[in-house]
Amino acid sequence: MDVDVIVIGAGPAGENVAGRVVRGGLTCAVVEDHLAGGECSYYACIPSKALLRPMELADEVGRVPGLPATEPVDVAAVLARRDEAVSHLDDSGQVEWITKLPAEFVRGRGTVVEPKVVEVTGQDGRVTRLTARHAVVVATGSVPVVPPVPGLAEARPWGSREATTVKQVPRRLVVIGGGVVACEMAQALHFLGASEVTMLVRDDRLLGRVEPFAGELLAESLRSAGIDVRFGASAERVERTAEHVVAHLAGGGTIEADEILVATGRHPALEGLGVDSAEVDDSMRVKGSDWLYAVGDVNGRSLLTHMGKYQARVCGDVIVARAKGEPDDGPALRATAPVPQVVFTDPQICSVGRTEEAARAEGFDIRVVEYDLGNVSGAYLLGDGYTGRAKAIVDERRKVLLGVTFAGPGVAELLHAATIAVTAEVPLEVLWHAVPAFPTVSEVWLRLLEEYGL
Amino acid sequence: MDVDVIVIGAGPAGENVAGRVVRGGLTCAVVEDHLAGGECSYYACIPSKALLRPMELADEVGRVPGLPATEPVDVAAVLARRDEAVSHLDDSGQVEWITKLPAEFVRGRGTVVEPKVVEVTGQDGRVTRLTARHAVVVATGSVPVVPPVPGLAEARPWGSREATTVKQVPRRLVVIGGGVVACEMAQALHFLGASEVTMLVRDDRLLGRVEPFAGELLAESLRSAGIDVRFGASAERVERTAEHVVAHLAGGGTIEADEILVATGRHPALEGLGVDSAEVDDSMRVKGSDWLYAVGDVNGRSLLTHMGKYQARVCGDVIVARAKGEPDDGPALRATAPVPQVVFTDPQICSVGRTEEAARAEGFDIRVVEYDLGNVSGAYLLGDGYTGRAKAIVDERRKVLLGVTFAGPGVAELLHAATIAVTAEVPLEVLWHAVPAFPTVSEVWLRLLEEYGL
Repeated sequence: MDVDVIVIGAGPAGENVAGRVVRGGLTCAVVEDHLAGGECSYYACIPSKALLRPMELADEVGRVPGLPATEPVDVAAVLARRDEAVSHLDDSGQVEWITKLPAEFVRGRGTVVEPKVVEVTGQDGRVTRLTARHAVVVATGSVPVVPPVPGLAEARPWGSREATTVKQVPRRLVVIGGGVVACEMAQALHFLGASEVTMLVRDDRLLGRVEPFAGELLAESLRSAGIDVRFGASAERVERTAEHVVAHLAGGGTIEADEILVATGRHPALEGLGVDSAEVDDSMRVKGSDWLYAVGDVNGRSLLTHMGKYQARVCGDVIVARAKGEPDDGPALRATAPVPQVVFTDPQICSVGRTEEAARAEGFDIRVVEYDLGNVSGAYLLGDGYTGRAKAIVDERRKVLLGVTFAGPGVAELLHAATIAVTAEVPLEVLWHAVPAFPTVSEVWLRLLEEYGL
Repeated sequence: MDVDVIVIGAGPAGENVAGRVVRGGLTCAVVEDHLAGGECSYYACIPSKALLRPMELADEVGRVPGLPATEPVDVAAVLARRDEAVSHLDDSGQVEWITKLPAEFVRGRGTVVEPKVVEVTGQDGRVTRLTARHAVVVATGSVPVVPPVPGLAEARPWGSREATTVKQVPRRLVVIGGGVVACEMAQALHFLGASEVTMLVRDDRLLGRVEPFAGELLAESLRSAGIDVRFGASAERVERTAEHVVAHLAGGGTIEADEILVATGRHPALEGLGVDSAEVDDSMRVKGSDWLYAVGDVNGRSLLTHMGKYQARVCGDVIVARAKGEPDDGPALRATAPVPQVVFTDPQICSVGRTEEAARAEGFDIRVVEYDLGNVSGAYLLGDGYTGRAKAIVDERRKVLLGVTFAGPGVAELLHAATIAVTAEVPLEVLWHAVPAFPTVSEVWLRLLEEYGL
């Protein structure tokens, strides 16, 4: 089959490339060997948030006198809603979305066998040969890394997929890792009944890529909920017995648990793809090629659904422009945006742009402004004992924001204001006239600017 | 007593003028005849939000399977938290804040008796004469309008103060009005036990100044909760008997209730102030004067705490600049910002800048973009049946946003992104690179831009 564009991988990034190129008048085939919709829809963002939402609400209710206790939680109902959120792992709705674009949907494993040619091997072994007139886009995502701990692989550890599709919440859980997946799943499963959760964190902090204060607030929250967070800790050997799994800790000691969740990072899903490297330029074209593109986790730029989709919009539009011989360097045709991220723990942690450390490392002349969210009237009104913090990094030369971080209950929707301010490089003296409504938590914007001296 | 600046009225606007002029090196006296902290702190924003918060949370919990029911509500606990939020109507903390600036706090009723001279009459009748070297600032706020309905004034109607300081929730309540106070208090009191609430709304919609769709969503929500919302309805006569209050409706019929809440607007609190008009220029100076300023509700520009505080920052800085003979026309010295507003009902309704109607009336060449919030993954994850909508008004000539409105559960914190975008006039092609984090409700920004055609 000949088409203009072949997309390998039907996660959010691949789907968005297809949507954009079809909108631009090109024909497209989308190849997927597992579920259209991708990791995000079935095993990551969607189910994890469905599992975390009741915890978030229960915590909020706990801070507001007058409402009855939120216990006991009906775990079966929470899991049932999670199942509904992931469409019971049925991707027919997503396949329909693709075919209605319209684009060809080809189920099977895609391999680039020569320039612009992809062979798709179906589950029955049948091979379909696809040829692209213009471009092949790799959007195969990423796979979890399992660290080479003796016995770990044999102990049937959980990865993010097993954690988010949990059917029976283990009573005792060991979590290896201190990143987003580790923190979110430790907290969600603890809320849903895992009474003994131990986190083995190799570093001395959680969420190594965000501002340290945010990881500290989160660690306090996890610990006060009863989760055993151990820094500088790792397993040197793991064994599964008939009854349970045992982690033997470096430095001595063991932990018995019912399950062990490994969340120590992911790497690009390039295996069997016929592509050696998915390193891309800002137009998402693989370096050294004039027909191969890569978007989403697989290009290694950012392991975030929204960034993959953003790259996909750029990539799709670039392919259309190049196919039509139109200018391919317009403002919408380069993916250079600051990266926002939300961690849906309690407290929620969200950030965009550079941390203080990153800004200093890049040589910016910066000033740091911080403010305690608990001192904002709008936060107090959300509940007693509201605890949170905001931190902004100001570029002193240009008087714009380089990065902003919020940590606190329910701050996820505060982020986009920061994303706009950082992306558009809105000068502080203009932000001064963007009046936050009273009494919202967003009033922290006024406080940060006042702290700065405006 | 001689000072540089006299501020009459110690609400948020007056307090902020004092804070700014003292920071600028001037001396200041603040005059207040009731409570330092103003209407907002004791009778408006703060207590209303404290009363609404449990309702908001209960509704959120109701949309998330797995958490137990949020009934019965402990009304006494809710009222106790409201009492705490308003510091039990004790303003000593606010007075301390003022005196620590430092500024003089003078309790009593201030009257401008001649240029730059204010006489303050204390409760004991003693008169203190204050003279200002540079400026007098009027920040006396506003008072509710009671419409001239026969019998209404004699029926001891509630205004916003009585509603927000409620100690015994009436079982039957009639609300006259369809604006913010009417809607917020009708909903809060209904949740707290007022089983029969009837709203008499003269117009054919709620919240006349926001986009019509938002008022419609709110009316649906009020009605589905069991509140009797009557449009084109008004009382032509009211009487209070020993047992209850009776509203006789224009067009026939009566409603019996335990209390009647009048929320039909406010007008500037100028009575006895010795000032005929508080109409100001953008520096907050009263037109025709070179020493009299007015900030907050009293100048009639905007009846919103945050706008009063914004005006106060500008006003204080302008007074300092003029007192020092410095340039008084810098970018921070004119209050021209777009106006954001949040209504804390369920659904919450928030908006900034111009509505479609206002933009058309001003002659802008606009395009309207709308999107259903229920179709955003982040909204679905918040709860089943999430209903809401976003509407953006695009200036087609400059490709910037003139106004944005959100209506839906928990959208209050989405607003500041719009406030920044509208205030900074961020071009759509730049907003396209401000990537909303997945899965947040803020992803509606992407959908709006896609709807626009980006």
